[in-house]
Amino acid sequence: METPLHIARALALAREAIGFTEPNPRVGCVIASADGVVLGVGRTQPAGQPHAEIMAMRDAAARGHDVAGATAYVTLEPCSHHGRTGPCCDALAAAGIARVVASVQDPNPLVAGQGFARLRAAGIAVEVGPGAEESRALNIGFFSRMVRGTPWVRMKIAATLDGQTALANGASQWITGEAARADGHAWRARAGAILTGIGTVLEDQPRLDVRLAPVGQQPPLVIVDSRLQTPPHAALFEVPARPVWIYAAEAHPQAQRALEARGASVTHLPGPGGKVDLAALLKDLGGRGVNELHVEAGFKLNGSLLREALVDEFLVYLAPKLVGAGQGMVNIGPLAALSDAVALEFGEVERIGADLRVLARVSRPAGF
Amino acid sequence: METPLHIARALALAREAIGFTEPNPRVGCVIASADGVVLGVGRTQPAGQPHAEIMAMRDAAARGHDVAGATAYVTLEPCSHHGRTGPCCDALAAAGIARVVASVQDPNPLVAGQGFARLRAAGIAVEVGPGAEESRALNIGFFSRMVRGTPWVRMKIAATLDGQTALANGASQWITGEAARADGHAWRARAGAILTGIGTVLEDQPRLDVRLAPVGQQPPLVIVDSRLQTPPHAALFEVPARPVWIYAAEAHPQAQRALEARGASVTHLPGPGGKVDLAALLKDLGGRGVNELHVEAGFKLNGSLLREALVDEFLVYLAPKLVGAGQGMVNIGPLAALSDAVALEFGEVERIGADLRVLARVSRPAGF
Repeated sequence: METPLHIARALALAREAIGFTEPNPRVGCVIASADGVVLGVGRTQPAGQPHAEIMAMRDAAARGHDVAGATAYVTLEPCSHHGRTGPCCDALAAAGIARVVASVQDPNPLVAGQGFARLRAAGIAVEVGPGAEESRALNIGFFSRMVRGTPWVRMKIAATLDGQTALANGASQWITGEAARADGHAWRARAGAILTGIGTVLEDQPRLDVRLAPVGQQPPLVIVDSRLQTPPHAALFEVPARPVWIYAAEAHPQAQRALEARGASVTHLPGPGGKVDLAALLKDLGGRGVNELHVEAGFKLNGSLLREALVDEFLVYLAPKLVGAGQGMVNIGPLAALSDAVALEFGEVERIGADLRVLARVSRPAGF
Repeated sequence: METPLHIARALALAREAIGFTEPNPRVGCVIASADGVVLGVGRTQPAGQPHAEIMAMRDAAARGHDVAGATAYVTLEPCSHHGRTGPCCDALAAAGIARVVASVQDPNPLVAGQGFARLRAAGIAVEVGPGAEESRALNIGFFSRMVRGTPWVRMKIAATLDGQTALANGASQWITGEAARADGHAWRARAGAILTGIGTVLEDQPRLDVRLAPVGQQPPLVIVDSRLQTPPHAALFEVPARPVWIYAAEAHPQAQRALEARGASVTHLPGPGGKVDLAALLKDLGGRGVNELHVEAGFKLNGSLLREALVDEFLVYLAPKLVGAGQGMVNIGPLAALSDAVALEFGEVERIGADLRVLARVSRPAGF
């Protein structure tokens, strides 16, 4: 009766944290008495502020409840290290929590089971597992960064049912409807950064910010711009307090100074053929704490990322339209055989307004 | 309590008739006593054999039930004309049926309300409406043929998520998985005819018969073959007792004789540019009693049918694959503006094995 219910509520709390905790994971916590009465609930706060467990204990205290002897249901292993906050393990033990039910072990090498060990050492009963799959899915980017050192790369594509992202003449506004565009902003909002290419910057003059969905802070914008061609007066600089990270392959000191004067940071990661080294770029973004990377780029950059096997997931909006000849989704092929196709696995499919939203993951031998 | 239940059962019986009643509509009938006890059930039999109402009355008699005073729940207006069978109206009245609940009026101009009038004239209470939408959807091809004189045209396309039906080198076997191919055969089985083009015949040497699904009789195969290039020894002639209807634009007496010797019928319907007149072809198929026309053709014929606004519905299987450069779904475009796109409306979307099946109808001002 108790575990699934309280863990389900803790997962719901964790989902509320989407878009507000970067680069921390999304975690929810429910503290309940032995007979199942909820004493306090909490979720991860913005980075540097208390974790879910602390918030739940504060909530219980504010309601006048003593948590001594209670169970803490938490969607991720309580932390054991001093980061920007004190270890949650110690706080739970100090408050007299008798039992912890956690969905999944923290992949952070600084935690990775030590939290559980520390709780057990303090005499607290520990159960691990309920809600593991959902908690991991909710924090797929955090798990990716902790395990691989790079973000979870989600490529957003809006196309017609026949796979065209633009007409042959370049027209692409608007392929999908308003509901799909708003949904796309919600996916931007949950990302640790949004990535695009210089082609899209020059052709579409996008802002690439979150306007149609709630967000804690605007995700940084990453521009793959090998030759530093981003115009210092591009519309994307009009978004207040949004970091702009430009990655270049060539040195263009004057252009760089002009972009830095607009608040952009410029990083040189030259790769083969005068292009930005995309794999190194992802490592750099991992180092900057980006969990989920939301890619909204064009045909060419999409193709480059895919050819280098750097894409994890596709977020595809299919509009109920056929246009025939136009611009495809990704610049790959022509392939010699169907067995050379990029293999995906379909996930959730949902109607968004008149459009379809299709999630598909790249098939891989292992988890990441 | 009674109506939705009995009509739902009658609709289920009608669905069982899919693929077995061409060119007749799919109809189910449940006869129930005044207190709701089911006395007999039936569904349309193959053309020339009894309709659902007669089958239900026979079923009741076989079970020893008297249907006098009972209600007949039927998914389509009982017929009032002498076709290959006697009018069901008269049979219901003769058996003493007190009330008829029918889903929808028969669009057949030979019936079209006369059945209801005749029932009422015989003192039978008539209620029309429950299950109307589903009954019409189930018989969309019959309604199309009765109202427009032409079949409901459903275009089947198997493509990758990025909209490619073949690689640039022509490879297309297999884009989708086994489950999707079997599902495709079930859609072939319900069709009054399957249509393809000479390009597909020459390139793929298909049989285009129903092998992976149950079927009453193989649907006739229609080939759009302007210059009568179908090889008399093509694999498609290996399907026993399956009519082959070839439509040509040019006269080639020798080729025609060879094809006729293989059992094919050849019809000349020349249109502009030395091509078969596709609109006239649909009228001809309507005259031959084809309700649902299942199109499995290539890029070019798909495009021609679409450009002439002859397509009603798309049955699209999307495989979880990306191939990039290849062959698209339909040979249309390049368009000048997105507002020129062929506008569709998404219907049912379902996972079929690893693939997605997407139904989409062409948006039209009126019903057909």
